[in-house]
Amino acid sequence: MVISNRLASIQPFYVMDILSRAKALERQGRDVIHLEIGEPDFPTPPLVAQYAADFARRGDIKYTPAAGLPDLRQAIAKYYRDRYGVQVESERIFITPGASGGFLLAMALVLNEGDKVLLEDPGYPCYSNFVRLFGGIPSLVPVDASTRFHFNPEILSAVWDRRTKGVVIASPSNPTGAVLRPDELRALVDDLERRSAFLISDEIYHGLEYDEPSSTALAFSDRVLVINSFSKYFGMTGWRVGWLVVPADCIDNAEKLAQNLFISAPTPSQYAALASFTEANLHGLELRRQVFQERRDFLCEQLQKIGFSIKTMPSGAFYVYADCSRFTSNSFDFALSLLEETGVAVTPGKDFGNNAPERYLRFSYAVTLDRLAAAVERIKFFSERGRHKRA
Amino acid sequence: MVISNRLASIQPFYVMDILSRAKALERQGRDVIHLEIGEPDFPTPPLVAQYAADFARRGDIKYTPAAGLPDLRQAIAKYYRDRYGVQVESERIFITPGASGGFLLAMALVLNEGDKVLLEDPGYPCYSNFVRLFGGIPSLVPVDASTRFHFNPEILSAVWDRRTKGVVIASPSNPTGAVLRPDELRALVDDLERRSAFLISDEIYHGLEYDEPSSTALAFSDRVLVINSFSKYFGMTGWRVGWLVVPADCIDNAEKLAQNLFISAPTPSQYAALASFTEANLHGLELRRQVFQERRDFLCEQLQKIGFSIKTMPSGAFYVYADCSRFTSNSFDFALSLLEETGVAVTPGKDFGNNAPERYLRFSYAVTLDRLAAAVERIKFFSERGRHKRA
Repeated sequence: MVISNRLASIQPFYVMDILSRAKALERQGRDVIHLEIGEPDFPTPPLVAQYAADFARRGDIKYTPAAGLPDLRQAIAKYYRDRYGVQVESERIFITPGASGGFLLAMALVLNEGDKVLLEDPGYPCYSNFVRLFGGIPSLVPVDASTRFHFNPEILSAVWDRRTKGVVIASPSNPTGAVLRPDELRALVDDLERRSAFLISDEIYHGLEYDEPSSTALAFSDRVLVINSFSKYFGMTGWRVGWLVVPADCIDNAEKLAQNLFISAPTPSQYAALASFTEANLHGLELRRQVFQERRDFLCEQLQKIGFSIKTMPSGAFYVYADCSRFTSNSFDFALSLLEETGVAVTPGKDFGNNAPERYLRFSYAVTLDRLAAAVERIKFFSERGRHKRA
Repeated sequence: MVISNRLASIQPFYVMDILSRAKALERQGRDVIHLEIGEPDFPTPPLVAQYAADFARRGDIKYTPAAGLPDLRQAIAKYYRDRYGVQVESERIFITPGASGGFLLAMALVLNEGDKVLLEDPGYPCYSNFVRLFGGIPSLVPVDASTRFHFNPEILSAVWDRRTKGVVIASPSNPTGAVLRPDELRALVDDLERRSAFLISDEIYHGLEYDEPSSTALAFSDRVLVINSFSKYFGMTGWRVGWLVVPADCIDNAEKLAQNLFISAPTPSQYAALASFTEANLHGLELRRQVFQERRDFLCEQLQKIGFSIKTMPSGAFYVYADCSRFTSNSFDFALSLLEETGVAVTPGKDFGNNAPERYLRFSYAVTLDRLAAAVERIKFFSERGRHKRA
């Protein structure tokens, strides 16, 4: 039995090295502050947990239709109307096992062997691997602070060739937290429509915005593929339930794929998600958003004081992508030493691409303000000592 | 935006036509007996549902490690020891979103573009599509009653060529319910090992056996890929939790894939599955197995009396694959008429491949004995009238 060639092209996540060292330190009794985390620190919202528990106890938990519970698809359609003022027919909304399932479905739907897909670098590392899984060729295109780490039509034009079939964008972005303005998003949507290319808009961090709310790509076209999830804003990571919106003429094909890939998303999770849209729960989520905002303000200010450079202020998600080149020429080594000496775990830039990753660290603020303050003290101590050592 | 070529090669499930017509009839007030169903009629076992509810209410529901909850992986390893007397290191066990997730992981792990994979025909229709998704070429190989609808080394030899990379087998089989004997399974495992080919053994219906218990392919080699799930025997379809066992030297690669494909299987479902292995629950599952056995005995006897031919008696799963050629030369039309005239829904042979599918129907016995008896009456009436009409 011989392993597939594709495995060689899938990078492990470097943060796993950080994480396994962090766990070893914790076993030795060291206190580790986890700023490498990609999930909110809040538990499942209590109203959602209670509703899910009541559902689970009844025990009648069968497969749902492949596209998901009709009630949940309608609730999401209503959410698009209420939050964004956008009409999306519920038939276009496919419930998936997390956003990961949405990416599987979307990539399987559009990719042929050899198709090139443009990805923002820095960006979420799994995009490349989803593209490769289905025979496509990921093309990492550097983006920087001059465009707030996002694509625009000029960048696409400069790298577009005849093999390019589409683009993935993410706003708010992981790792930068940068949010596309509505006019910027519209320009991208229009450009890709003009090219008859696909646009996959990853909107998984929608709702976690601290300056202006995000627009959805669905506001500008009904030909885009939009991925979202209950994991981040809705605080339901472990439940693994997300969704994919497809153009109307892709519904039958998406259904065939969903039947084969998933049978259906987990039923208890779909029912739990149904409880997300009550007014009381949405109010709770707004309070959580405000907590994240406070942490962002604090962390950005403190990191800059220490000497990290934040070239694009994060307006969403729960990450700060900070330039640490004042302290090191190798952010991965810096992250390892920071952990070793102070017990603060962060994610090295090289998990997000090839665009000067050695200059960057991603700091997550999915910990309490107290812990964030403690982390800042340790980082400050470490950075100053490091500067001293080099002097 | 242009759809992938792969969609053209993915057949819809013909049973969906039956199902949508069945729903239309039900909306008209007609009583439909569902013998087309692929999931047990029992609810989630009460002990499992209660445990899951208690867990959900606590609300601390984060991602698990990509390979799954360590406790659940160990519980499954213990299950292999207790049930089969086989040692499987828990590190080789990957928890997946249903068996579907296991197939995604397994196929992504072994397939390169153009690799040929041999599949039993008749067989579960999704196998072909999983192979195609990852660039492989499914090759449907006819099997019949002479080998109880299973592969053996002679059949493999006759069709093997240099592009063939591996084989999928399923015992108990869907749709035939046929179970491989230990010596037959060992012969297949040995043959494929000798060829350095991969063997994916789909053991999702394990535990639902009515004559002899199944052997696992893991008893004969630690180089096979084994897929199982909590859906069928454990009665937890809607929870979407299954597992894949990989060879020890594939653990790191399987982990990379799982991180990218799933992040992790649904956490509440993994905790629910943990409660499956208590003695009280396993006792409840044994009682359910006995109920299935009683239904199998009844349905097989009755179908034969009516004039259906069952060439291989089903020893597992909850299906009877019956030859209806005495009544029709087109089992799909027969299924549609049977539904229309009597309200009994069954699955046409052509959902399971190209091997004389027009002669076969799959009858599921995931309904109560009362309903099964009512279905038999209706089928008898319909078949006799049909014979009369043709005369």
